[in-house]
This record gives sequence, structure tokens and C-alpha cells, in this order.
Amino acid sequence: MSKRRRHRSAEKMLGTSPGTLTYVGEEIEHATKIKRIDYNATEYHIDDPIKLSTCQIPASETPYVSWIDVDGIHEPKVVAALGQQYHLHPLLLEDVMNTEQKPKIDLYDDTVVFVTLKMLHHSRARQEIDIEHVSLVLGKNYLVSFQEERTKDIFEPVIERIKASSGKTRRNGADYLLYALMDVMVDHYFVITERIGEKMDELEEQIVQERATQQTLGTLYTLKRELAFIRRTVYPLRDVLGVLLREESELIQHSTLPYLRDLADHVNQVIETLESYRELIGGLMDVYYSIVNNRMNSVMKTLTIVSAIFIPLTFIAGIYGMNFANMPELRSPTGYFWVLFVMAFIAIGEIVYFKRRGWM
Amino acid sequence: MSKRRRHRSAEKMLGTSPGTLTYVGEEIEHATKIKRIDYNATEYHIDDPIKLSTCQIPASETPYVSWIDVDGIHEPKVVAALGQQYHLHPLLLEDVMNTEQKPKIDLYDDTVVFVTLKMLHHSRARQEIDIEHVSLVLGKNYLVSFQEERTKDIFEPVIERIKASSGKTRRNGADYLLYALMDVMVDHYFVITERIGEKMDELEEQIVQERATQQTLGTLYTLKRELAFIRRTVYPLRDVLGVLLREESELIQHSTLPYLRDLADHVNQVIETLESYRELIGGLMDVYYSIVNNRMNSVMKTLTIVSAIFIPLTFIAGIYGMNFANMPELRSPTGYFWVLFVMAFIAIGEIVYFKRRGWM
Amino acid sequence: MSKRRRHRSAEKMLGTSPGTLTYVGEEIEHATKIKRIDYNATEYHIDDPIKLSTCQIPASETPYVSWIDVDGIHEPKVVAALGQQYHLHPLLLEDVMNTEQKPKIDLYDDTVVFVTLKMLHHSRARQEIDIEHVSLVLGKNYLVSFQEERTKDIFEPVIERIKASSGKTRRNGADYLLYALMDVMVDHYFVITERIGEKMDELEEQIVQERATQQTLGTLYTLKRELAFIRRTVYPLRDVLGVLLREESELIQHSTLPYLRDLADHVNQVIETLESYRELIGGLMDVYYSIVNNRMNSVMKTLTIVSAIFIPLTFIAGIYGMNFANMPELRSPTGYFWVLFVMAFIAIGEIVYFKRRGWM
Amino acid sequence: MSKRRRHRSAEKMLGTSPGTLTYVGEEIEHATKIKRIDYNATEYHIDDPIKLSTCQIPASETPYVSWIDVDGIHEPKVVAALGQQYHLHPLLLEDVMNTEQKPKIDLYDDTVVFVTLKMLHHSRARQEIDIEHVSLVLGKNYLVSFQEERTKDIFEPVIERIKASSGKTRRNGADYLLYALMDVMVDHYFVITERIGEKMDELEEQIVQERATQQTLGTLYTLKRELAFIRRTVYPLRDVLGVLLREESELIQHSTLPYLRDLADHVNQVIETLESYRELIGGLMDVYYSIVNNRMNSVMKTLTIVSAIFIPLTFIAGIYGMNFANMPELRSPTGYFWVLFVMAFIAIGEIVYFKRRGWM
Amino acid sequence: MSKRRRHRSAEKMLGTSPGTLTYVGEEIEHATKIKRIDYNATEYHIDDPIKLSTCQIPASETPYVSWIDVDGIHEPKVVAALGQQYHLHPLLLEDVMNTEQKPKIDLYDDTVVFVTLKMLHHSRARQEIDIEHVSLVLGKNYLVSFQEERTKDIFEPVIERIKASSGKTRRNGADYLLYALMDVMVDHYFVITERIGEKMDELEEQIVQERATQQTLGTLYTLKRELAFIRRTVYPLRDVLGVLLREESELIQHSTLPYLRDLADHVNQVIETLESYRELIGGLMDVYYSIVNNRMNSVMKTLTIVSAIFIPLTFIAGIYGMNFANMPELRSPTGYFWVLFVMAFIAIGEIVYFKRRGWM
Repeated sequence: MSKRRRHRSAEKMLGTSPGTLTYVGEEIEHATKIKRIDYNATEYHIDDPIKLSTCQIPASETPYVSWIDVDGIHEPKVVAALGQQYHLHPLLLEDVMNTEQKPKIDLYDDTVVFVTLKMLHHSRARQEIDIEHVSLVLGKNYLVSFQEERTKDIFEPVIERIKASSGKTRRNGADYLLYALMDVMVDHYFVITERIGEKMDELEEQIVQERATQQTLGTLYTLKRELAFIRRTVYPLRDVLGVLLREESELIQHSTLPYLRDLADHVNQVIETLESYRELIGGLMDVYYSIVNNRMNSVMKTLTIVSAIFIPLTFIAGIYGMNFANMPELRSPTGYFWVLFVMAFIAIGEIVYFKRRGWM
Repeated sequence: MSKRRRHRSAEKMLGTSPGTLTYVGEEIEHATKIKRIDYNATEYHIDDPIKLSTCQIPASETPYVSWIDVDGIHEPKVVAALGQQYHLHPLLLEDVMNTEQKPKIDLYDDTVVFVTLKMLHHSRARQEIDIEHVSLVLGKNYLVSFQEERTKDIFEPVIERIKASSGKTRRNGADYLLYALMDVMVDHYFVITERIGEKMDELEEQIVQERATQQTLGTLYTLKRELAFIRRTVYPLRDVLGVLLREESELIQHSTLPYLRDLADHVNQVIETLESYRELIGGLMDVYYSIVNNRMNSVMKTLTIVSAIFIPLTFIAGIYGMNFANMPELRSPTGYFWVLFVMAFIAIGEIVYFKRRGWM
Repeated sequence: MSKRRRHRSAEKMLGTSPGTLTYVGEEIEHATKIKRIDYNATEYHIDDPIKLSTCQIPASETPYVSWIDVDGIHEPKVVAALGQQYHLHPLLLEDVMNTEQKPKIDLYDDTVVFVTLKMLHHSRARQEIDIEHVSLVLGKNYLVSFQEERTKDIFEPVIERIKASSGKTRRNGADYLLYALMDVMVDHYFVITERIGEKMDELEEQIVQERATQQTLGTLYTLKRELAFIRRTVYPLRDVLGVLLREESELIQHSTLPYLRDLADHVNQVIETLESYRELIGGLMDVYYSIVNNRMNSVMKTLTIVSAIFIPLTFIAGIYGMNFANMPELRSPTGYFWVLFVMAFIAIGEIVYFKRRGWM
Repeated sequence: MSKRRRHRSAEKMLGTSPGTLTYVGEEIEHATKIKRIDYNATEYHIDDPIKLSTCQIPASETPYVSWIDVDGIHEPKVVAALGQQYHLHPLLLEDVMNTEQKPKIDLYDDTVVFVTLKMLHHSRARQEIDIEHVSLVLGKNYLVSFQEERTKDIFEPVIERIKASSGKTRRNGADYLLYALMDVMVDHYFVITERIGEKMDELEEQIVQERATQQTLGTLYTLKRELAFIRRTVYPLRDVLGVLLREESELIQHSTLPYLRDLADHVNQVIETLESYRELIGGLMDVYYSIVNNRMNSVMKTLTIVSAIFIPLTFIAGIYGMNFANMPELRSPTGYFWVLFVMAFIAIGEIVYFKRRGWM
Repeated sequence: MSKRRRHRSAEKMLGTSPGTLTYVGEEIEHATKIKRIDYNATEYHIDDPIKLSTCQIPASETPYVSWIDVDGIHEPKVVAALGQQYHLHPLLLEDVMNTEQKPKIDLYDDTVVFVTLKMLHHSRARQEIDIEHVSLVLGKNYLVSFQEERTKDIFEPVIERIKASSGKTRRNGADYLLYALMDVMVDHYFVITERIGEKMDELEEQIVQERATQQTLGTLYTLKRELAFIRRTVYPLRDVLGVLLREESELIQHSTLPYLRDLADHVNQVIETLESYRELIGGLMDVYYSIVNNRMNSVMKTLTIVSAIFIPLTFIAGIYGMNFANMPELRSPTGYFWVLFVMAFIAIGEIVYFKRRGWM
């Protein structure tokens, strides 16, 4: 999570008219790339790249499902032009460009289903989680997908499946495509939670085997923040799917519902796993604190035992180190040995006492 | 809980088409075994094992309840074949094979009720809880049960009851069989909670009698994790039963509802017991920390008392151990005894002070 | 709370058919006693004891309310016989005998209202709470009550009111009797919470007056467990009454509803009091820990002050106790007094410093 | 909060018939005083005191609003007589007399709206909160108010407004009077929360300026208990108003609803303030503990620094205080000065080390 | 947050009639300024200032949207006069003047929508958050806005947009104006949360880099209070927008709903950010405490190591400092060196022991 992305520059936005298109994410130099895939059960065409001007809302009796994949959301002009060609509401376009927007669903008069959600991608190299803002616009026979410009196209596997065979994706409509794209993203959430699970196992081992340091706690704290962040990204998806399942939009066919239910089930599984990790972190912290506490106790016990044994003995030695003219014991030939004997007796007595109290 | 089973290998699944059948559990070498039991109030037939090809959806006017018990869910081919013969949805079959799937219920167009849940079995030998993924498919006059391949058949008691007499199970339909199988599994949950209760009693005794060690806390932590795990397994069952009771599927007869309500009641009882254990663990931890804290206090008090008494005395002894040429007290014949008297006076004074403050 | 009663022997129950009558409570030797009270506004008859065979479901046009009070639920035969005579569902009978069953309500086809709840009785002698499993079966014109066999009949006050006068109980139907019996039991809950309140006041006084010991915390923990236990017993009663008020069973007359509402109100009051006690215990623990912490602080301060004053002084004395041949100060006739002066100066300086920091 | 009032003597109530009128509050010697105010927009009559026998339910076409104000609820006879004259349900009368009853609303067949709530009055002299049990019975054209007997009549301001002018109260019906009386009481809640806010500000200042003592925590605990108590008194009022607004009783005119909504808003404001105080107390406790902890740390650091510096030096002095016949250093004429130099070097080294670690 | 504004002077309000207009905020000397802006898609007129008497409810067929902006709510006369001219309910006017009123919405008979909310403005100079009480009254074709008198007009940007072009604001009705004004205020909330986020980042850096002091915790506490305060201000806005979206008032056109939904979405985003900050603060406190704890541990370890090494050695030195006549070792010529050797051996032994236990 690069911190720079966390804050929308709220101050600059003050007073701008609602629906003003402004890109608030990282600066990007590449131009937007647009791809079009038309397919049905028997054939498919891919145009990559296509010009902006050729993207038009397809006729309602077209025999194809038309998928426009927009790679790059940083050019207000491009987004605005697409918005006009597909008759999209200005607020919808604002949400497409606002990389700070949380996942949500909007139904515009039963002609458009708008879903925005987050792609999470774990970068092993940087040990970070990359976030990508993705928006999907489902219309009659067509779907427009917007993704932030990245080196890798996250929808590649779906394109491959379309190319590969005339399987489920090819036989079904644009609503199934919407499902398939969301499904790809949710599958990535499983990968992320798996990674976090691995880290947790490591930390648990460290803590339970008492090899934990102050740094371990720091890692736990970072993990907790990461979990909170992912949770905030995944939770709203539950509502998104809930709306899709409940609202009975005409754009969603009855046969797609079991797949959406299955997806909702997957999202719930991710959420549950995240919750269980959160609980686990709490438990690990307790164990960590208890171990630290225990170490402290054992340090204090050592101090107390050493002090309690030697301080009184030193006092006795101090007494016979005094230089009084008249100290009868000093003159006794066996005095020294008696004192040593008394000291040994005291020391052993204390050791027995400490053993009994379980301090040694 | 063997850890290896906890994570679905999410990365390998990336990009596969939804509904692809993949087995994700432990590797298994045995072949799938299928058993068929046909029964009604007056007679019963058991074919064990039967061939896959003879499993067919029974005619709707058959006088028997037909139960197909599939022992092993690791062979995609077998599951796919059964799916075809019984007209099951690909997503249903995916759930049958996905041992990571949480308990859930799905109603497919009122022709099939699909329930998946977890068998928990406490292994005394390994002091572990074994989990088994079980799926039940209820249709008109028939029930197909899938269980992971294990040495012991968990539905044995129900088969015994069918063989033994023409009791309730024999007189009722496939929906009662569904209930009976779920009931057997919930009964095992009671056994599990009983075991945990015993462990808790042990720990409580250890802690309250102040015999707890750092390890006790470790056990509490493990117990907490186990409880969380079981809770996540049992909770969804409440919803499963809620749907069965609410949805009024035609496959569930009116006379079976009281039994399902009773089962829901049992599940609630298990959940409640788990919750009370969770609370208890929190309380035990508090007591444990307080005892540790108290011990620490008593250690510190000992240190303080010993130091506070002997450090000043040692100082006095140190004074008269100095080698100044002119120290009048040293020459007094009774000086030594006066000093001993003063020391005793100081020591007694401090002891009285500490007793008054309640430190001794 | 005798621990032995807490666990149902789940393992033994594995595989038994649902509805099998098994008594799981404490072992009892007495035989079941059955009493019958028939009454209306003008007259009443009490037969005590009666034979099992004479208990029959009364004719629907009978002018009496017929109350069968069964004292003892440990004999499966007796319960089964009553079940047959009153046409009760096997699962209902299972709940009557299962002393582990939580309070609940079941409506069987509008011919029977079945309520099971717990009698709590505080035994001053043993300083324990006795639990008794009570079941009430309300039918047209009759009520069958089951209670565990005990020395004292808990429904005595209601019988007395029936005998005493032709008051509200006599003038109303069997539904009012159901209310009256539940009311007697809820009144006992008030007594229990009052007892707990008294114990809490004691503990609060102990803690606030800083007389608390490790044992006080143990008592708080026990109290917390007791509270949790009672809460689990009382909470479900809220739902029971909610169902009675909402479901509009024909067996409950309109005029009885205000009384049931009042009872629900009482139950809520008990729950609220329990909740406030729970919160209070949390607060008391905080105060206790803070006091313990404070004591620890004052112990540490004492240690620090004594050490900080005398350790440096002892060091100075040690210096002049060294036996070097050439130590000029030792030969000075006023050296000794100068050293004593310096020591006094250091000691006073430190005392001033500690006073300023507020440690003394 | 006088503790004696907290517990209803539950044991004495065991077995009494429901609806039995028993006064459970503090003992009171004065007789009940009854006042009657009849008013409409043009005129008003006050009879104070009136005899019990002259209190009658007014005719439904009376041109006056008739308000009976009963001052004293400790005489069962008086309450019972009023109950008969106004046709009130026995359970309603029980609630009037039960000073332990939580605030609630009951609608009796659309002929009577019964509201019971608590007057809270802050006594500056005793630094305590006085509670008074108040019940309001709204009928067609009349309202009967019951209050505990106190020196001051809490409804005085409303009577003054009735006398003063023909304002809103005079122009509206009995339902507006119900609102006006409740409003007076809620206004007192604001005063109470204001007092608590002042105390909190004081405590916050004490804690943040590190002047807090163990007693401060005691005050925080008392405040927390007081807050919990008030919360339990105010919360149910929300439901009471919710029912009044929702149920659309014929006794409540449409024009009174905005006022009741406004009152509900005030109650919510009180609740919110109480909640924010509760949160604040939690935060203050955290700060307090952290300050205590910090003090402890600084005590320990002092101890450690003093000990770590002087204990090794004392050891060195001890070495040269030994009386061995052959200790070459002792004979060196500069030995003493070398030792002093080494000691100074060690001391300075340690001071530098502690400064670097930030301990000094 | 100036504390003086927190408390409504509840005691003075006791007994005043509901709907009495009293200003409870800070004292203000300026007179109220009123501005009127009439506009439609083609033209606009601004009258600033206008006289109170010229503010009249516009005719329902007026071609303009009429916006009255009242700058100052401290003069009861002015507010009352406006109330009369626009037929506003007395309770509405009470809410306009009560600066303590929490955000809320009231619908008065579908002729007026009344919204009151809080402007939050971060003052960089004083490092404080300024609060301004704002009320908006939406009628047919008109909107009256009330704001507290301040140097800067917060609605300036909207006025600028009206002046600038015939954009969305000009083309839409009074309901869109209501949205636009609320939107301006919500945009300020984003600025506030951004500021808090910056402070949090600073604190996090301080804490994680272990540069935190007791003061850091104080800042965290202040931040927590500020967050709680803002949360209480922003939360009710969610309900306000919920009512606007749900109630389908005739005053809100269908085309404005997407904008209000978008605004609700923004409010949710603010709330979510605040929640995540709250959680973060909790986590930071944990890390802080753990660091403090760790420092304490390292202090204690130092003390223990120094004491445990030197106290026994000093004891040995003390032994040979005794003055017994007969101490054979003292006479040995190598005794001194043996003792030094033994001391070194003990010291090294202890160091090895401490290293092994990980204390050094």
C-alpha cells in the first residue's frame, strides 16, 4: 500500500462542481488503450487497439456480446467521450476516474448496471499489495470495463477462455461476462489471504517458540493494518453482490444467478478468513505480551534471589569489618569459621524458602 | 486440525473456469466406494458396493426411498458422472469436491435440496479434531450423500437403524433421512464440545489452584483457536437449518419439520456452549494474569523488604569500617554493642512499618 | 451449580434414535408423584397423589380447569405413559426429560403450547444456586406441569392461592395458570439477583476500601461465571414470552395478554439487572487492578528511595575503609566528621529531590 | 443514588398474587395530596387540595382538560380508589406504586395511555442524584399524574404556565399536557448531564495535568456507575416516545406529534451525550494508566541508574578494604589516587551510556 | 473545539415553554445580514443586503429559484419574523437557533423540508476545528439558508458557480441547490479528515521510530476526542440523506436523486475513514505501550545484570575485609590473587549465563 494513494487531495476539490472529472491517482504517462471483443457461441472478433470513435453502443438486436476493455482511466477526455457514446451519467464517470472510490453498485434506470471494485495484486518483489481501481458497466448486449493502466492486463485469463473454446463464457451473455470478470478478481483475493496466512503462520511460530522480538510486534501491527485495509476493500463487495442478487435487474438473466450466488459465497469465505485472521492476531498479541511479561518476571526473580541472598550476608561481613576496639568475637580463634557457617546456613535457608515458593 | 488442510491452493486456481471440478483436500489412493440402500416401512435392500453406472435417478412413483452413499470425493470423473446421472448443477458438484467449502444450503428449483456440512470427529489418540467434508443431495424419493473417504463410515448408526427395525427412519421419506444424517453429525458436535469442556475444567483447576505455567497459557491459546475453528464450522449450520425451515420446499414434508426444529435447537445449544466456553477462556486469562501479577508483586515485596532492611544496616557497618585515625566511637569499649543495638532497633522499626502497610 | 450436571453425556447418546427418552440428570430414587387439581371460580378438588392411569385428557366442554402436577421426570415409563394419554409429540417428551434443555417454547398445531424453563433456587446453606428443569404443557382446559423431584414443591404458593379464595387464578382459565406458574418462577429470579447484588455490594466495599486480596478476584470470577450461567437461563425466556405474545395461539385468551406482557417486563428487568452487574464487575476489576498496581508502585518507590539514599553513602564509607598505605584524608583529625557531614548533606539532598518529584 | 432504593425486596414478594399493590420505596409519613386543575383556552380552575371522592372520570363532552395531580404513591388504598374511579387495570396500578419499575409505556385498548418514567434531580447539597418515580395516565380529556411525595412539586413550571397566560398549553388538549410534563422532566436530564460534564472537565484537567491520584480513579469509577444508572433510566424513554409516535393512538392529536418528535430528539441528544461521556471516561482511564506507568518507569530508571553506578564502585572499594597480607597495590603511594581515578572513569562512562540510551 | 460551546446552559432553560426562541451560542455583536439570489437557466439577480421585510414566500408559479441566505442566527426577532413570512413551525425555528442541535431532517407536511447540519472548518492558525450551525429550509421554488455569522461566507463557491455560467446549478431547481450547499459542506469534511490523517501519519512515524514520549500519548488522546466529536457530527448526516432518499418528498425531483445518492456515498466514505482512523489509533496505542514496556524491560535487565554480578563479588570482598584475628587465607601470600581469580571466574560465569538466557 503506497501511502501516497491513500488521501484524495480534498482541499483542491473544494468548490468544484459535482460530476467534474478529475483523476486523483498516481501520475501516468501512457495513453489510454482500448480493446474490443465481440463474441457469441460460434465466433469471436478481437480488435486491439481500436480508436475511441469506433466505440458505439451496439444495436439491441446484435447477435454478439460486445466487450469494450478500457486500459487507463487517467484521461478525462477519453472517459468523457466514452460516457457520451454510451449515454453514461456524469456521476458514474466521476466514480470511474476516482481511484479513491470504495466498491459499490449503481443501477441506472434498468438500462445500465454499474459496478466498481478493487483489484488486489500481491507483488512478491516489493512485498506490497497493489491496488487497481476497476469499473464495469453492463448494458444490454455490451459491457464496458475500465481498469487503471498497468503492465499486465488482469482480464487476460477471461480473454484466453473466450479465445480457447466455446465454453460457458461464450455461450452466455454480457451478464455472465460481468460475473466472469468479478470472479477473476475475487480469485486474486484468495491469493492475497493465502499470502497473509503464510505470514501469520511464520509469526505464530516465532511467537509460540518465544523467538519474538519488538520487531515481531511491529510486523503484527503492519499485518493488522493490511488486514483492515483489505477488509474495507472486500466488505462492500458483499453488498454489491447482494444488490445484484436481490434487485432482479432485467440485465441479469436467471441462469446467471447461481454463479453470482456462488461468487457471493466466495466473497463471504474471504471475509470470514480475514475475520479469523484478525481474531488470531489478537490472540497472538496476548501470547506475546504474556511471554514478555514472563521474561520480565524471571528477570525480577533473579534480581530478588541474588539480592536477598547476598545483601544480608554482606551486612554480616560488614559487621566484622568494623574497627571497634572491643569486639570480643574477633579475638576468638574459631570466630571466622563460625561466621562462615552462619552465612552458609542463612544462604541455604533462603534457597530452600525460594524453592518452596516456586521462585527457583 | 492439520494445518496443511487450512489453505486452498488459491494461486493454482487463478483463471480456471468456474465450475471446474478440482479436488483440493489431502491426497488419497483408495478408489471411491458407492453403496445403495433402498427401503420403505416393510422392506430394505442394501447393495454394497455398486457400480457407478447403476446409479440412476429413481422413478418418481417408486415405493422405495433410495439412498446412494458415495464414500470418496477425490475423483472428479466419478463425481462428474454422478452429477450427470442425477442432473446436478456444475456449481453443486464443485462444492461437493471443494473440501474448503463452508457449510451451506442451496435450493435448485425445488427439485433438489443441496446441503454441505462438516463432520467433526475427535481423535483421542492424536488429541486432534478430524474434519470431514460431507454433502447431501435430497431429491424426490432419493438422497445422495458424499463423504470423504475414511476408514470408518460415519453414517453407520443410521444404516444400523434401517436394518434393525421398521422404526421412524423406515416409516418416513428421504427428507427424514436427510434429517437423520445431519442429526448424527450434530451429535458428534456434542461429543467435541464435551471434550473441550473437560479440557477447560482441567485448565480452570490448574489456574485457580495457582499451578498454571506459561504452557497453560499456550494451551488456552490453542483451545481458543480450536473453539474459533469449530464455531466457524457450526455457525453456518444455523442458517442452513433456518433456510430448510423457512423456505417450505416441497421436498420437505410437514411432519419432518418438528424434527428439523429440534435439530436447530441442538445446533443452537452447541453454539451457546461454545460461546460460553469462549467467555470462560477470557475470564480464565484474566485470573491467570492476575495471579502472575500477584506473584510478581510478592517477588518485588521480598526484594524491597530485604533491601530496605539490610542496605541501611550495611551502611552503618561501613561507617565503622572506615580507617580514619580519629574516630572516637571506635575506642569506646561499649561502642560495638551500642551499634548492634541501634541496628536491631532500625531493623525492628522497619519490620513494624512493613507489617503495618501490609507488605509482610 | 453442581458441575456434574453441566455436561450431557454426549458420547453415550451417539447413534440413538431421535425422540428416545433418556433421563440425563442426577440419579434419583424416589418414585414420581402425580397430583391433580380441578378448579373453577366456585369450587376446587385436589387429588394427591393420584394414579398414573387416571390422568386423562379432559373433555373439551368440562367446566373445570384441570391441572396435573408431575413431581419427578426421571422415569421414562411414566413420562411416556403421560405422553400417550395426552397425545404429546415424542420430541416434546424428550425435552421434558432432558434436564440440559435450554428454556424454549413450541407450539404443536395450536392444540398444545409447550414451555420449558428453569427454576433457580438459591440455597443459603450451600451458598449455591439449585437448578430445576420445569416443563409446562398447556392444552384446552388443562395444564400438565413437570418438575424435577425435590423436597419442596415450587408451585406451592399457587396451590395455596387456589385453595385460599376465588381470586384471579380461580376465575381465569388454564392459560392464566400457565402465567401464574411462570410468574412464581420469575419471582425467584428476582431473589437470586438480589442475592448476587448483596454479594456485589460486599465485594465493592472490600475493593473500594482497599481490603481486597487475590481471593476477592477469585470471588469476582466465580460471580461472573454465575452471572453468565443465569443469563443463559433467563435470556431465552424473553423469546418464549415474545412467541406467546406474538403468535396469538387460540389457547391464550385476550385477557391474559396484559399479564404476560407484565411478566415479559419483569424478565427484561431481571436481564437488565444482570447486565448492569456484569458491567459493574468489569469496573470493579479495573479498580482492583489499579489498586494492586498502585501498591506495586509504592513498593517500588520505597525500594528506590532506600537504595538511592544508602547505596551512594555505603560507597563513600567503602572508600575510607580501603587499606591503602597512603590515604591523606584518613590522617586528618577532622576527616571522619567531614565525611559524616558530606553523607548527611547527600542524604538530605536526595530526600529533597524525591519530595519534589512527589515520590515521598 | 441512595443504595437502599436499588433493591426491590424480592423475597417478601414471593408468592403474592400478581397485581397486588405494595409500596416498595422509602418510608413516608405524609398523607397523599391531590390537586385538580381544569382549564381551557379561556379559563382555568385550581382546587388544591381536593378530596379523593371528588376525583371522577370527566364526561367525554366536557369543555375542560382535567388534570389530577397525585402527590404521594405510598398509600395502596388511595391508589386503588383512584384506579377504580378511573377504570384502571390492576397491573397499571401495580406499576404506579412500584418505584423499581423502569420507564415504559402501555396502551390499554385505546382508552388509556399509560407512561411511567423517572424524574432525576441533582441535589447540589448532597452531591447526589435524587430519583422520583412518576406515572402519567392519559385519557379522553383528562390526565392523572402520580409523583412520589417530595417537598417540591416538579410540575410547578407547567402549572405556572397554565396560570400565566392562555399560551400553547392552554390552547391544546390533554395530550399536549402529557408532552409538557414529560418535557419538563427531560429538561432536568439536561441539567444532570451538564453537571456530569462539569465533573468530567475537572477530572480531565486533573489527569492531563498529572495531578491525578488513586482517588481520581475512584471518582471516575463512581461517575461511570452514575452514567450507567442514568443511561438505564433514559434509554427506555426512547422506546416510550417511539411507541407514542408510531402507534397513532386516538388520544394523541396530529398537531402534538411534532412536539413529541422534538422531545424524542432531546432524549436522543441526552443519550448521545451520555455515550460520549462514557467513551471519554475510557479514554481518560487510558491516559491515567499511562501516566502512572510512566511514573513507575521513571522510578525504576532512577533505581537502576543509582545502583548501576554505585554498586560496581562499592565493589572496587570493597576489594581494597580486604585485609590480605600481600596486596601490592596497597603499598603504592599513588594507589589510592589511581583507584579514585578509575572509579571516576567508570562512573562517567556509565553516565554517558545511560544518556545515550535516553535513560537520563 | 472551544469548550465553552459544548454545553447548552440547561439550567436556565428549565421551565421555559417549548418553542421559545433563545440563542445559546457565542455572543455576537454584528447585525444579521440577509442576501437574496433569484436565478434560472437564463438569468440571475443578486440583492445583497436586502431588508427583512422584503423576504416573502415566492408565488408558486414563479420562473425563478429564490434563495434567501441569512447570515447570523443570534437575533430571535429576525428569525421569528422570517418564520412568520415563510410559515415555519416554531419548533423548526427553535432548531435554527439552537447551535447545540445535532444534524437532523424534518419534513413538515410535504410543504417544507428542513435540514440542519454542521459546517466544520479547520483553522490552520489556531490548530482547531471551527463548528458552524447551518440550517436549510427547502420549499416550493425557494430555499432559505441560515448560517452563524462569520467573517467568511461558506456558500461563496456556490454563489460563484451561479454567477459564472448557466451550468448544472442554474438549470436545476431549489432541490439541487439544497444538494449543492450540502455538498460544499461535505467537501469540507474531506479536508478535515485529510488533516487528521496527516497528524496520524506524523504520530505513527514518531511511535514506530520509538521517538514517542508521554506527550505523544496526550496528542493521541486529543485526536481520539476530536475524531469522536467529528463522528458525532457526521454520523447523523447519513440518516438525513437516508430520509431524503427514502421519503420521496414532492419537493425533491427524481433527477436530483442520483446526486443525493452520490452525496450519501461521500458521507459514508468520510465515516469509513474516521472509523479506520479510530482503529488505527487503538493499534498505535498498543504499539506505544509495547515499546514503553520493552524499555522498562531493558531497564530492569540492566539493573538485574549489574546487581547480580557485583553484589556477590562485593560480598566476597566483604568477607576478606573482616577483622578476625584468625583468618588463615589472609596470611597466604597468593590469597589475594586467588580471590581475584575466583571473582573473575564468577563474573564471567554469570555473563555467560545471562547471554544464554538472552538477557544481554
